Amino acid sequence: MTGTSFFSDMVQTITERGRKLLSFAPRAERLPSGISGLERLCEMLLSSRGEASGMALAAEILQQWLRLSDEDQRKFMLLLFEKFGPDPDKLDAAIEAYRAARTSRAVLELHQAAEPRRQELIRRLNLAPSGISTLVRMRERLLRLKADTPDLETVDADFAHLFASWFNRGFLILRPIDWSTPAHILEKIIRYEAVHEIGNWDELRRRLAPADRRCFAFFHPQLADDPLIFVEVALTRDIPENISAVLDETRAPIQAQDARTAVFYSISNCQAGLRGISFGNFLIKQVVEDLRRDLPKLDTFVTLSPVPGFSGWLTHERRKEHSEILSTEEQATLAALDDAEWSDDPAKAAAVRAALMPAAAWYFFKGRTTDGRPIDPVARFHLGNGARLERMNFLGDTSSRAMRQAHGLMVNYLYKLDDIEANHEAFAQRNEIVAAPGVRKLLRSERSGRSFAATSGTNTKDKQPDKNKANSKELSS
Amino acid sequence: MTGTSFFSDMVQTITERGRKLLSFAPRAERLPSGISGLERLCEMLLSSRGEASGMALAAEILQQWLRLSDEDQRKFMLLLFEKFGPDPDKLDAAIEAYRAARTSRAVLELHQAAEPRRQELIRRLNLAPSGISTLVRMRERLLRLKADTPDLETVDADFAHLFASWFNRGFLILRPIDWSTPAHILEKIIRYEAVHEIGNWDELRRRLAPADRRCFAFFHPQLADDPLIFVEVALTRDIPENISAVLDETRAPIQAQDARTAVFYSISNCQAGLRGISFGNFLIKQVVEDLRRDLPKLDTFVTLSPVPGFSGWLTHERRKEHSEILSTEEQATLAALDDAEWSDDPAKAAAVRAALMPAAAWYFFKGRTTDGRPIDPVARFHLGNGARLERMNFLGDTSSRAMRQAHGLMVNYLYKLDDIEANHEAFAQRNEIVAAPGVRKLLRSERSGRSFAATSGTNTKDKQPDKNKANSKELSS
Amino acid sequence: MTGTSFFSDMVQTITERGRKLLSFAPRAERLPSGISGLERLCEMLLSSRGEASGMALAAEILQQWLRLSDEDQRKFMLLLFEKFGPDPDKLDAAIEAYRAARTSRAVLELHQAAEPRRQELIRRLNLAPSGISTLVRMRERLLRLKADTPDLETVDADFAHLFASWFNRGFLILRPIDWSTPAHILEKIIRYEAVHEIGNWDELRRRLAPADRRCFAFFHPQLADDPLIFVEVALTRDIPENISAVLDETRAPIQAQDARTAVFYSISNCQAGLRGISFGNFLIKQVVEDLRRDLPKLDTFVTLSPVPGFSGWLTHERRKEHSEILSTEEQATLAALDDAEWSDDPAKAAAVRAALMPAAAWYFFKGRTTDGRPIDPVARFHLGNGARLERMNFLGDTSSRAMRQAHGLMVNYLYKLDDIEANHEAFAQRNEIVAAPGVRKLLRSERSGRSFAATSGTNTKDKQPDKNKANSKELSS
Amino acid sequence: MTGTSFFSDMVQTITERGRKLLSFAPRAERLPSGISGLERLCEMLLSSRGEASGMALAAEILQQWLRLSDEDQRKFMLLLFEKFGPDPDKLDAAIEAYRAARTSRAVLELHQAAEPRRQELIRRLNLAPSGISTLVRMRERLLRLKADTPDLETVDADFAHLFASWFNRGFLILRPIDWSTPAHILEKIIRYEAVHEIGNWDELRRRLAPADRRCFAFFHPQLADDPLIFVEVALTRDIPENISAVLDETRAPIQAQDARTAVFYSISNCQAGLRGISFGNFLIKQVVEDLRRDLPKLDTFVTLSPVPGFSGWLTHERRKEHSEILSTEEQATLAALDDAEWSDDPAKAAAVRAALMPAAAWYFFKGRTTDGRPIDPVARFHLGNGARLERMNFLGDTSSRAMRQAHGLMVNYLYKLDDIEANHEAFAQRNEIVAAPGVRKLLRSERSGRSFAATSGTNTKDKQPDKNKANSKELSS
Repeated sequence: MTGTSFFSDMVQTITERGRKLLSFAPRAERLPSGISGLERLCEMLLSSRGEASGMALAAEILQQWLRLSDEDQRKFMLLLFEKFGPDPDKLDAAIEAYRAARTSRAVLELHQAAEPRRQELIRRLNLAPSGISTLVRMRERLLRLKADTPDLETVDADFAHLFASWFNRGFLILRPIDWSTPAHILEKIIRYEAVHEIGNWDELRRRLAPADRRCFAFFHPQLADDPLIFVEVALTRDIPENISAVLDETRAPIQAQDARTAVFYSISNCQAGLRGISFGNFLIKQVVEDLRRDLPKLDTFVTLSPVPGFSGWLTHERRKEHSEILSTEEQATLAALDDAEWSDDPAKAAAVRAALMPAAAWYFFKGRTTDGRPIDPVARFHLGNGARLERMNFLGDTSSRAMRQAHGLMVNYLYKLDDIEANHEAFAQRNEIVAAPGVRKLLRSERSGRSFAATSGTNTKDKQPDKNKANSKELSS
Repeated sequence: MTGTSFFSDMVQTITERGRKLLSFAPRAERLPSGISGLERLCEMLLSSRGEASGMALAAEILQQWLRLSDEDQRKFMLLLFEKFGPDPDKLDAAIEAYRAARTSRAVLELHQAAEPRRQELIRRLNLAPSGISTLVRMRERLLRLKADTPDLETVDADFAHLFASWFNRGFLILRPIDWSTPAHILEKIIRYEAVHEIGNWDELRRRLAPADRRCFAFFHPQLADDPLIFVEVALTRDIPENISAVLDETRAPIQAQDARTAVFYSISNCQAGLRGISFGNFLIKQVVEDLRRDLPKLDTFVTLSPVPGFSGWLTHERRKEHSEILSTEEQATLAALDDAEWSDDPAKAAAVRAALMPAAAWYFFKGRTTDGRPIDPVARFHLGNGARLERMNFLGDTSSRAMRQAHGLMVNYLYKLDDIEANHEAFAQRNEIVAAPGVRKLLRSERSGRSFAATSGTNTKDKQPDKNKANSKELSS
Repeated sequence: MTGTSFFSDMVQTITERGRKLLSFAPRAERLPSGISGLERLCEMLLSSRGEASGMALAAEILQQWLRLSDEDQRKFMLLLFEKFGPDPDKLDAAIEAYRAARTSRAVLELHQAAEPRRQELIRRLNLAPSGISTLVRMRERLLRLKADTPDLETVDADFAHLFASWFNRGFLILRPIDWSTPAHILEKIIRYEAVHEIGNWDELRRRLAPADRRCFAFFHPQLADDPLIFVEVALTRDIPENISAVLDETRAPIQAQDARTAVFYSISNCQAGLRGISFGNFLIKQVVEDLRRDLPKLDTFVTLSPVPGFSGWLTHERRKEHSEILSTEEQATLAALDDAEWSDDPAKAAAVRAALMPAAAWYFFKGRTTDGRPIDPVARFHLGNGARLERMNFLGDTSSRAMRQAHGLMVNYLYKLDDIEANHEAFAQRNEIVAAPGVRKLLRSERSGRSFAATSGTNTKDKQPDKNKANSKELSS
Repeated sequence: MTGTSFFSDMVQTITERGRKLLSFAPRAERLPSGISGLERLCEMLLSSRGEASGMALAAEILQQWLRLSDEDQRKFMLLLFEKFGPDPDKLDAAIEAYRAARTSRAVLELHQAAEPRRQELIRRLNLAPSGISTLVRMRERLLRLKADTPDLETVDADFAHLFASWFNRGFLILRPIDWSTPAHILEKIIRYEAVHEIGNWDELRRRLAPADRRCFAFFHPQLADDPLIFVEVALTRDIPENISAVLDETRAPIQAQDARTAVFYSISNCQAGLRGISFGNFLIKQVVEDLRRDLPKLDTFVTLSPVPGFSGWLTHERRKEHSEILSTEEQATLAALDDAEWSDDPAKAAAVRAALMPAAAWYFFKGRTTDGRPIDPVARFHLGNGARLERMNFLGDTSSRAMRQAHGLMVNYLYKLDDIEANHEAFAQRNEIVAAPGVRKLLRSERSGRSFAATSGTNTKDKQPDKNKANSKELSS
């Protein structure tokens, strides 16, 4: 316990701001600027010269980049694409050498020859103090540009490759976030919360300060001011059915020692520039680990999750002339959903429920994207992590966003330690949706008389999960 | 200043030791062990299964590896070579695709196909808590094995590639080391000191505690218990000529404010497993930066360095029948060096000096390895960093090691901020040795009448520095 | 710098909350409770028994006290008065012994015999974890009770005596407060701000985050969650004339390096239970010290202060039939002050100004309490610290509170390092008000023709400062 | 847990060394020096002037004091005695007032009038940065002077009174000391260890680093570089009989989780200037508390203690013509103790044992000082804390010191949570020695036929413990 403070002081050095311009800056001439100037600086950084004044050069390039106009930032990205790919002649030579003699040395040289020069450039830009922070912003920009400029796809692949290595879970640090966390971090929690909005500091306090609330975030030592992802946790006696019970301002907090259940009710990614670099899986599991150590009585770890894809999918089925999923009567009943106040009328709500819940079961168990995966991105995330679908909660969230996205539906995913690996394998290898009997029953009992089971069985076998799309498993929030 | 403590606490999490076995371990079966078991675990870690229980799997593999016999550790390395290279079929397909259409996508896929699978394996092993520490030990072992098993060269290239990325200067943290540093760190300073041995804690105290001593080390957040490299600094009025004045137990320390000169008198790499990953250059420059900020009166930054290659080279010249460098008389004079007590006799020492110093100048200015670089590894390091050869000190170090390695010769290299980049370029591009006039004069005046200049000039031009041998530039200590 | 973290970790131990009930609690019987039970526990704590289980006993007493009703808390205080004074027989014996032989031993024993037993009781209550925090709350209660129960005056004197010793400046720690300070501390800054209200977290951010703002607080290691006193500082080019310029939401912050002036615009005591324990003097001087070290270009340290007693005093003069200070015309002019909007009308405001400013000068220079001290508590505080009255600012604060308390008047007090001691002596010994010539001139020129000087001169000599009323020097806020 | 780092950073401020001379120093004249100069400075510090420049004045006085010669330091102490006692006239007046009307106000004023002026002086000296550290050194000097100068007794009483208040347990911080503690603290552990000497850093490492060793110290926030008292703990399976088993270099450490017993085998006070301020009692109990929390399987808390008074007492009995305790045969047998090698001869040792152990029982149970307390200072300390005498260990420590002080005898005192209070009461109120049956039996069985029981019974009743000698209860080490 003691002694760690020596190391902990380390990070102070990292977060020291306002560091003076480095003395070892290149001095011989006026530094070039503009896009062509940046190109020259980048070449300089990659050259031997970069060795003597690498930190200063890298800092200069990153600072210039931050000051570029949007258009010039785009040009810079294209420059990375056009001028900092692999050297084609060297690559051809390496291919020839490899074809001539398939030695391990030849493979190594082929691999090196095929590596775009921008990878080394990005590594050297990281020499700058706080370089990683600017590189993440660079990629944030790149992700927006990529949509319109397919050429930038490979530039992005290089960023993503390096980020995956640098933001390896082994380098991340889990930190509890609470009411004694520095305000400038908390400010970011307010800003980044993507699931259940935090309106102001009083609301934030209610999420962090009570004895039955927890929050955890992953940080990277070089981005210590900025969480990467965080999860909000409620400690409860039972699995909650709706979010308003969790967030109720007037509820009486319970003692942490009395809780049996930890509810992960909000998970938010923070850095747009790290899209596709997967943290959520590790975060949840590490938090389960830490909570169990601190509160040994906890025996249930469960989410209370949104269903962001449901309403879009259901609307499509409702409007089909011949839906396989909804009968004509059901379509008629569900027309009530078009009325914004439908949930206020108990009779109407009960009717909707009878039709909506079986459809929701279908959505989870049978609904598939064209590549055979569950439609719902949050379901893909948690099921892919090895959780099981535990319960569906009708009108679990009546906020306008949830009503719009999911007609108020919320879902609990259960993380049961002993089953996580088997669940994951079932999902990853055989596309099986593991669910509590109650949820599964909803599907079967309500849908009896139709040919779902067979169809879905076939479905399951036909559609193998595409393991290469790891990125799309990330939380959509 | 405030607020950073939030982040600094982070690293506590990292260094928490004795963490319990993770709960999310694979559970379905008994874990395999032995070399073939390890192979299966590694395949598992690379498979989808690794996603659900990656941290636990990685931890298991690393722990098993640590318990392997020496022979089995060697077998494991060969396994990485044989079974975890790139997939040859995929690589062939990627080559064909690239030859068919040289798109950026095809290059990307070729690059990926040429990447040995062990790179991803190493990245995933890093998921384990403290994984990086075991990976560094793995490479330490690998470096010893490589000598006898050339196949392992490419395995080492993969480790080196990832380490260069992970131990990027941007991720390193400079920390002062002083007498209030935790004892378990100081213990390592004693152990790793590679230049001027630290015999016990009292000696250590004399290196750290006085007002005119400083020490700095680079750390990596994930190896917070272990310095990567450190430098010991003496604050002095003038540039010292010998190490005994610096280390003298009875000297009276000066006030730090009175110092004009900072002397880097010992630089030691600590992690054998990080050989070839370059830190020393950044360390010296960062320390200059920090010292200048704290003590604005410092205006001279200089080393007091050993000359480890000198004695071997000189002996060779002394025994040559026709040395281009030493005259027969000089050879006769220098025969005194074979007498262990030569330096005790002032007359003998004076005679030796007259012959030895010009030879030393030749050694630095003209001596070259077969690839055209200076013979002395310490000279290569400092000159490559942009320092200049400032002074040669006859009998600067009379310890038995220094007498054996360099006949007691020590050297000062000067780091002059304004010249560093130009010096570096001169050395890197044209193999020029930048030196103070006094040193250069020693060469010219003493050697007049011979054709050194021409010879050396030719030499310089013929032998271009080999920029790919970056590793050999690292400090030999 | 390093090594201090060992010590800094210490305080973690202090602030560890939720510490379990101590094991060494008294076990032999059920603990008594109620007022008589508390009396028995207090006697137990003072007895030998208290030595074995002192921490637990102290904790028990403090916890019981916190749960008492208001009325029982009052009874407890009376109990301290009645039962825990000095032992009268011992005191008589000690007096006799002293009268018999005036040895230093006899004085010592007399002093001890005269010490109320509650002093030792309070010391032992401080054994409890966080005992000091409850003791401060106890005195807060006591101060409220004292008004109605003069007997409690001596009980309070004992608390005050011990607190003055425990909260000695030597034990206090100055900490910057900024936007990276933990939220639960910042929350208290919002709550305790007593001069210029902080409405919400956005306003707080504007006080702390900009480059030209600073805030500092004194903490006690045992009350680490709670500031004792804090000061808010604006870094400016010139001395500001009004508070709205300082707090203006739309102002453009300047670089800290460009500032010449540090303005202390708000000082707030935080702990009602520490009333009369003087921190403000040390706080300001320490902050001046620290600011000068960090920003050597700062050369002016000045307050922008309220004048809380002015309006009450002026109203009294305005309503006198024969005011020595205000002429009948002036009384008529100042009748405008009774109109809440008087300052909106430029003509009216100008007329008021002409009459009000000389009166204000009189208020500061000549106005005296019955014991001969300046009327204004803020003036007493800053002048007593050695500041001088630098400038009076008409309509410096148009907030409703300031208009009510001081007709909008604000004042700058200047802390000039070289003069502080002389100023303090002048004030403390001779009751002299040191002021800038501009302020003094206002008094003389405007008031010529009346006999102020003589009167006031007499005043000054007659009324010696009462050095025992140290408490009343404390800031009234 | 988080957020505490804000507070923990606080102490950094405290330990910042080399703070520049304060700007608010008295400026008007050259500061006086020498003894008479110091007297003037002290009067200045007590005067109103002290309020404006208190910190600087206090710092000046303390620095001057540190530079005084031994003789002048003594004169300064006498000055405190002669010139800074209470004002006799005020005291007389207060006595008269009290005799006239015995109001609580009169008592208060009497108490204040009887307070020596040096108490307030010492409080104000504590204003200086690190003042407390110099004040502790001052008292260290005072304690040495007191022996020869009885007048200084009352000066010491004032220091002791204030120190008892300032070093109240409520202000102390318990810190584990381990191998990752800063070296400059560990260096002090080596220096202060008073029971079983630590020869060098390797020995220290063996006391701190193994898994079954612990060490804890109390610190004061204002003396953060210097422990006040520390205890070394061995975690073992059983209660050890001798110290060599505990300190054996070759022993195999056990896992902390496997330990059932915590052995306090060395307790050392560190600050000579804090003699008589009691920490040991609190230290042991807090450490028991903390160990139980971390290692719930620990169920036995016991010391392995020296018996420093035994040999002196026994020698006295051995040499008596008619010892009540030793028979003539026993005296003859014990004559062997005069032979330095007696313990090497098994037969001789066995004979000694038979005579020595009953005498040791007598020493503990019946031996009394003239004021009726146990002779052994370590026994007084632990029995007074509520421990019981658990076992006597023949030849428990064969080091030369222990052979000299106690003929090798060691003792275990047991801290049993449930009995501590009753044990303490028995000892404090009735002078009863609580012991394990085995120890008591040794006394009875071996000594039957003599009148010990009656004698001792009488003894016990006659000699009431002197509760005022609290100081002498402190550990003698």
